[in-house]
Amino acid sequence: MSAPVAPDSTDLDSTDTLTGVLRTVLDGQWHETRDSVRQNIDRVDLLPDPSHTLDQARGRILATMRDLAAQGFAAPGFAEGHGGTGDVGAAVTGIETLGYADLSLMVKSGVQWGLFGGAVENLGTARHHEKYVPGIISLDVLGCFAMTETGHGSNVASLETTATYDPATAEFVIHSPTPSARKDYIGGAAEHARVAAVFAQLITGGPDEEPEGRGVHCFVVPIRDDDGHDLPGVITSDCGHKGGLAGVDNGRILFDNVRIPAENLLNRYGDVAADGTYSSPIESTNKRFFTMLGTLIRGRVCVAATSGAAARKALTLATRYGLLRRQFDAPDEQGEVTILDYLGHQRTLLPLIAKSYAIAFAQNDITARLTEADPDGARRLEADVAGFKAYSTWHASNAVNVAREACGGAGYLAENQLSIIRGDIDVFTTFEGDNTVLYQLVGKELLGAYAEDMRGLSARGWVRFVATMARDVVAEKTAVRQVIQTFLDDSDENPEDSNLTNRGTQIRLFRNREDHLLRTCAQRLRKSSSDEDAFEVFNNAQDHLLKVGQVHTERVILESMIAAIAECEERAGDGTEGATVAREVLWKVCDLFVYSALEADLGWFLMHRHVSVERAKAIRRGVNDLCADLRPHARALVDAFGIPESLLTAPMLDHG
Amino acid sequence: MSAPVAPDSTDLDSTDTLTGVLRTVLDGQWHETRDSVRQNIDRVDLLPDPSHTLDQARGRILATMRDLAAQGFAAPGFAEGHGGTGDVGAAVTGIETLGYADLSLMVKSGVQWGLFGGAVENLGTARHHEKYVPGIISLDVLGCFAMTETGHGSNVASLETTATYDPATAEFVIHSPTPSARKDYIGGAAEHARVAAVFAQLITGGPDEEPEGRGVHCFVVPIRDDDGHDLPGVITSDCGHKGGLAGVDNGRILFDNVRIPAENLLNRYGDVAADGTYSSPIESTNKRFFTMLGTLIRGRVCVAATSGAAARKALTLATRYGLLRRQFDAPDEQGEVTILDYLGHQRTLLPLIAKSYAIAFAQNDITARLTEADPDGARRLEADVAGFKAYSTWHASNAVNVAREACGGAGYLAENQLSIIRGDIDVFTTFEGDNTVLYQLVGKELLGAYAEDMRGLSARGWVRFVATMARDVVAEKTAVRQVIQTFLDDSDENPEDSNLTNRGTQIRLFRNREDHLLRTCAQRLRKSSSDEDAFEVFNNAQDHLLKVGQVHTERVILESMIAAIAECEERAGDGTEGATVAREVLWKVCDLFVYSALEADLGWFLMHRHVSVERAKAIRRGVNDLCADLRPHARALVDAFGIPESLLTAPMLDHG
Repeated sequence: MSAPVAPDSTDLDSTDTLTGVLRTVLDGQWHETRDSVRQNIDRVDLLPDPSHTLDQARGRILATMRDLAAQGFAAPGFAEGHGGTGDVGAAVTGIETLGYADLSLMVKSGVQWGLFGGAVENLGTARHHEKYVPGIISLDVLGCFAMTETGHGSNVASLETTATYDPATAEFVIHSPTPSARKDYIGGAAEHARVAAVFAQLITGGPDEEPEGRGVHCFVVPIRDDDGHDLPGVITSDCGHKGGLAGVDNGRILFDNVRIPAENLLNRYGDVAADGTYSSPIESTNKRFFTMLGTLIRGRVCVAATSGAAARKALTLATRYGLLRRQFDAPDEQGEVTILDYLGHQRTLLPLIAKSYAIAFAQNDITARLTEADPDGARRLEADVAGFKAYSTWHASNAVNVAREACGGAGYLAENQLSIIRGDIDVFTTFEGDNTVLYQLVGKELLGAYAEDMRGLSARGWVRFVATMARDVVAEKTAVRQVIQTFLDDSDENPEDSNLTNRGTQIRLFRNREDHLLRTCAQRLRKSSSDEDAFEVFNNAQDHLLKVGQVHTERVILESMIAAIAECEERAGDGTEGATVAREVLWKVCDLFVYSALEADLGWFLMHRHVSVERAKAIRRGVNDLCADLRPHARALVDAFGIPESLLTAPMLDHG
Repeated sequence: MSAPVAPDSTDLDSTDTLTGVLRTVLDGQWHETRDSVRQNIDRVDLLPDPSHTLDQARGRILATMRDLAAQGFAAPGFAEGHGGTGDVGAAVTGIETLGYADLSLMVKSGVQWGLFGGAVENLGTARHHEKYVPGIISLDVLGCFAMTETGHGSNVASLETTATYDPATAEFVIHSPTPSARKDYIGGAAEHARVAAVFAQLITGGPDEEPEGRGVHCFVVPIRDDDGHDLPGVITSDCGHKGGLAGVDNGRILFDNVRIPAENLLNRYGDVAADGTYSSPIESTNKRFFTMLGTLIRGRVCVAATSGAAARKALTLATRYGLLRRQFDAPDEQGEVTILDYLGHQRTLLPLIAKSYAIAFAQNDITARLTEADPDGARRLEADVAGFKAYSTWHASNAVNVAREACGGAGYLAENQLSIIRGDIDVFTTFEGDNTVLYQLVGKELLGAYAEDMRGLSARGWVRFVATMARDVVAEKTAVRQVIQTFLDDSDENPEDSNLTNRGTQIRLFRNREDHLLRTCAQRLRKSSSDEDAFEVFNNAQDHLLKVGQVHTERVILESMIAAIAECEERAGDGTEGATVAREVLWKVCDLFVYSALEADLGWFLMHRHVSVERAKAIRRGVNDLCADLRPHARALVDAFGIPESLLTAPMLDHG
């Protein structure tokens, strides 16, 4: 074979050590949560059953959630004072790990505890925390998160549902004025939810004011009685079958002048006095709304995290199959060749495994940042989370698809899981923010240098805003972390003069690409000379703007990966053989991530002369060489993901 | 908007004419078949019902097939002398068009009439035609095509099932010697099929010979009685739920020394006398097997054709949605912008529509070549079909996925069809030949210049073969068709000196890429200096070889597209406005196909200096400009696919 002699991953001792070290590095800060959830879900009966009807699938997921609730699964997501244990990182990690079992379980748990619970926790005040949070944790209060409407998914500031305050009765009237105001795709709304966190345009005025719109606020609205029947004025319906996620009861809600008590306004960021007077700690309607949205960021983090888990699971199944399945002739003509020994198959799977490593390291960073109460960093974190969600979900969608194909006909059978994961993961690119809209958001944030006033501007307004900015947007970037700075200092300023395996060179290539795209995008947008052409200027540069979002995200991910490996290198002073091999392997994985990312964007790098033709050829060859180098470690690399063995049950893997 | 003033596609008259002309050009030679099947299947009850159980879904598809059979749907696929009407082009086109209704219907029809029927028709002789063909056409004989085994899908020459001739009883004994010899994923084997066309290693010898292996042959083996019970020695089982295609009953078959009469050997290419003596018109076992496979090419053509249909349907749904759905701010601040007015969304859908046009034109050519009995062109056709199947199915998999995402949450609901199509089309990249294996086959054929002796060689043998070839592989290419030659003559030899919208320049860019890759791949392979390193040399060049297959296919497709539009230009001498606009639009569609194909491979073109940096930038801009130019025609472009309106039923399109 073309692979050089290397530690044999079938040697149990050596594998165990290598796998063990890799896993420790991947598991990161919340390793205890990972291990405890892994243990809890290591049950083959948690896997989706494709023969179930919708009712059966939904019932099963709810029952599993009740088990989880009984074990205290949901407590970390809520503050200690509210009945939780206040460990956001553990909450996110727990939800993510559920993705190894059944993505329906993850989504429905995420809706109940992350989105609905998160809305009450973050947008409500003491009266809501006392009344609802314990029941949310225990599942005595089953809720749903009613933001998206038939007419509005991405542009939620324009939701149509209204909440009009009636001072005569001290009630809000929740109403769907048009068919497109119908709440749609709402997880839990079809069947199980009794209460909804409803986002609606608040309309109120004080004694001497005309009632007016105050922007979108969130209200707790009971939708069903204890027997599951719609309450008066509430009309729910069922979204029925979907591309996957059979265990999640997505539905629709129409409100016909439904009255709720004033206290049901989640009033942390905006309140209405008994006489209808509106007050808020945040003056600007836009800023208020985006602040509210910002507190709900955890849902997006969970979606990104779980996509990472789904990709890892699919790649584990495909890699194990690739190491077992033989086809066509062997070099020694003794039987056929393991398909993972073909370069083509290595090129199919190993770069995706490398990308999964990068994403896992970045996820650990994102989760950690989520737990840091740093108001100055909030905008930056939001942008990074938006980009990361797009990056991770597109990776998952692609990786699962590729993994299915890599297992041929066996991959298509539900018994081998991949096709189920494929159907389930598909919508992750859409919910919690359409990926295209998210990359655009990242680009806009970077170009606006996180300016407070920029949000909620129309394309026209935003282009005018950017056009008036004098400062250099590139200079606004976040401070470089120390370990990255050290690598930069150890490399040539001109990447072409440095070896491509030099970390500083790798970082420079990604940073230079980002800076270049950001600068040139700003130049294009500033060309807008009048109000009239502002939309056209925006639209003509949209592909450019989207690419800014993508390359920024990839740069942040690379820096997370490098920092994590460097840190592990520092800690691993024990010099055991496993640790030594693991460090070597991890840097190769980092190289493969870098080389294949460069290869995927080689047109751009060549076109803008950030990479020479000679280097471009070296990159292509480098991907091949790295695949050969990592091939002997393929099994260890995926085993290090630590997916419970019961959840990797697949008859196609039974030949060994 | 950025789009220039252009004929308004909402103007009914103009659209009708434009749509009509485009449709005529797309429909091509078998337009009558298309129209008649369209009319037959314009029924909403033919769409898949996601609430059905497997049993219901399977029963429904079989019932629909019985309707089709009663209408004479299957007759064109069989020779007049055998009870058919002998119109292969109509047979392929008919199967393809079923894909607009339900891909399960297409697949199960393809298995019965194309694969099983095709095996009997093409590998059998008069006695088989008389006995089986009328029943195959009428569905009195329900069959399946038992080639793939659990252990062998791609490498079918190594199938393990044996057929041992017993001269004492004049019977063949069909046997599965190992678990991996089990026939697997066989459509129809789970439930409906009564008979199987079984591919097995024939073992026989004459009176004075030791019995020996004669290579893979095909046998008609009864597997179930009239009540659907397994016959003695036959053990069938069910593959159960899959990623899609719920209406197809895929199953497995194990044979325990099942005896069948000697006459059940499909003996066109190899026969066994009563005393066991083997005879064949083709001496080489390999050549014989590949000749047999070659006659079964129609199945692969149908899979490619239907993938084209599935992509067109998905793109039609997504484009109509994109023209209806509004989100975020309009330039004139009167409501929100239609999402297809965003450049990002145009870039998502329009290049895929252009690619669908290219594939549709190439399909027409492939279907026509299939009907031409040109033995000299058979090898070339096989290679082109293999590459085209890979190209078309990967396009479909991608286009359906993108279309789903482009419709957001609505796209995920089964009621809007896209997620069902997504699940169904997934396995098209796998069955009738794994795409990677197919591109490799194309590359090998081109490098071996269609040499007869090359097939069935191991990687080692093949590398040695290529290494000994002295002649220049590039010179072996097919003759250039006249219309393409004319375009080439009208262009500069150096593409960089010519306008990029010049057809000759476009063809040259694609041809030069293919020649370059073919030449350099041959050079790499010839470096093999010994037997020992032959596999390594092969494996190190595998990515190169796969790319040869892909770029060859893309070049053939481009030439089909250009020839089809040029021909329509010649015919459309009537000068009606519709025809004039249609010609302009079609050339723009061709440009968009070319520009986006170049953009997708820009790294290669720049790296090998086939495109300059300036031209590369022009290509990116060109894609944007072409999207803007074609945006006003988006509706006409998809309506021209002529998909029956009932089959485009989707609640998300009901807002208009």
